[in-house]
Amino acid sequence: MRYELHYWSSIPGRGEFVRLALEEAAVPYLDVARAKGGEARMLAALGDASLSTPPFAPPFLKAGKLVIAQTANILLFLGDRHGLAPAGDAGRYFVHQLQLTLADFVAEIHDTHHPVAGGLYYEDQRPEAKRRAADFTANRLPKYLGYFERVLAAKPGKAAHLAGARTSYADLSLFQVVAGLRYAFPKALARAARKCPGVIALHDRVAKRPRIAAYLASERRLPFNQQGIFRHYAELDR
Amino acid sequence: MRYELHYWSSIPGRGEFVRLALEEAAVPYLDVARAKGGEARMLAALGDASLSTPPFAPPFLKAGKLVIAQTANILLFLGDRHGLAPAGDAGRYFVHQLQLTLADFVAEIHDTHHPVAGGLYYEDQRPEAKRRAADFTANRLPKYLGYFERVLAAKPGKAAHLAGARTSYADLSLFQVVAGLRYAFPKALARAARKCPGVIALHDRVAKRPRIAAYLASERRLPFNQQGIFRHYAELDR
Repeated sequence: MRYELHYWSSIPGRGEFVRLALEEAAVPYLDVARAKGGEARMLAALGDASLSTPPFAPPFLKAGKLVIAQTANILLFLGDRHGLAPAGDAGRYFVHQLQLTLADFVAEIHDTHHPVAGGLYYEDQRPEAKRRAADFTANRLPKYLGYFERVLAAKPGKAAHLAGARTSYADLSLFQVVAGLRYAFPKALARAARKCPGVIALHDRVAKRPRIAAYLASERRLPFNQQGIFRHYAELDR
Repeated sequence: MRYELHYWSSIPGRGEFVRLALEEAAVPYLDVARAKGGEARMLAALGDASLSTPPFAPPFLKAGKLVIAQTANILLFLGDRHGLAPAGDAGRYFVHQLQLTLADFVAEIHDTHHPVAGGLYYEDQRPEAKRRAADFTANRLPKYLGYFERVLAAKPGKAAHLAGARTSYADLSLFQVVAGLRYAFPKALARAARKCPGVIALHDRVAKRPRIAAYLASERRLPFNQQGIFRHYAELDR
């Protein structure tokens, strides 16, 4: 069985967290919307009235008869199936907790450039964005990264992963968040990074994992751009 | 073993979703912060450097040696343990998907009155709140409720629950969101409710479940107020 990932074709966005897990697990998948006519196929699936488990929004994953939406939920599923989360209860729920904290972080990152409405252009909410981004870079970004630094520091010995003894989907997602922040908020990230060497080191280790490195060098990896969650507006990065 | 729920003592907030699940499951729990000296105990647990699975923020649940944070993650755990989610993969992941969609909805509800920064007073972000709330009431609120109406409509026969044949934690949470919207946005909810009779009926059925009805009538249930997620500001509810 080949998985089908349904997500917008032009942005890394939330779909990228799923792609990283699929690539690290080395499971075959079709990136539906990036194939010819694929975005129409995705939208048809999204609006399919016969679906008993309809998604609210992309990304969603088709796995045989299962249709699973919500990024963290897809990762919970892939984590269970493909060894991307600890098997024991403590580690398994903790990895999911970390992922949900990253999801909150990602939503706040998005809202720095869209504090009023996702349906409006950035240019229509620039004053509000400046205020929100100022709070984000001063308070929220250091708080979130500091939390993940604390998680790594709380592990005995040299912490190579956020939880357990192997790479989990939360490690992959933290890599993506750091990479996205480096694109969107290079100045704020550089400041915060001084206090979070463990987080930065984890990002660097994930980037060097053989399957991830191969993926990042491939055309399957979409570059960050000005349409997604992570956008670079110099006036927001003080 | 008695669970310990750690959450702020003065607001329903995100802790309320956990309380509703604990009450429906009829499992014994201590609402830590509401006991004498409890909020200090909660804050001590939150800052405990020896915790290997530290929470980012309340709510968190102590279940024996497990410490589980993030509302949806706590509900995933309680759903598995206490029959508040279907046992099969399709239903189990779907209920979690619904919960995560409700979590997104709740975050957007919160940000109507705090679009700039959670650390600032509402009064310091009123113009931005008005713009955000206008989009929320016109677009987001009807979209989210319409989605849950669609989920109910997609079920064969008379849909008594969002998923499966029994009450799940997502049903309880949807009840709480509707109740909160009725407090915070009575006008906007009344408008949207006309197109979502199934959602409103589900709210009413949950309120009448024996354990939930007893809980709602007890002192354990905190009333909505102007400090939590659901706040009523007349100027935001057009």
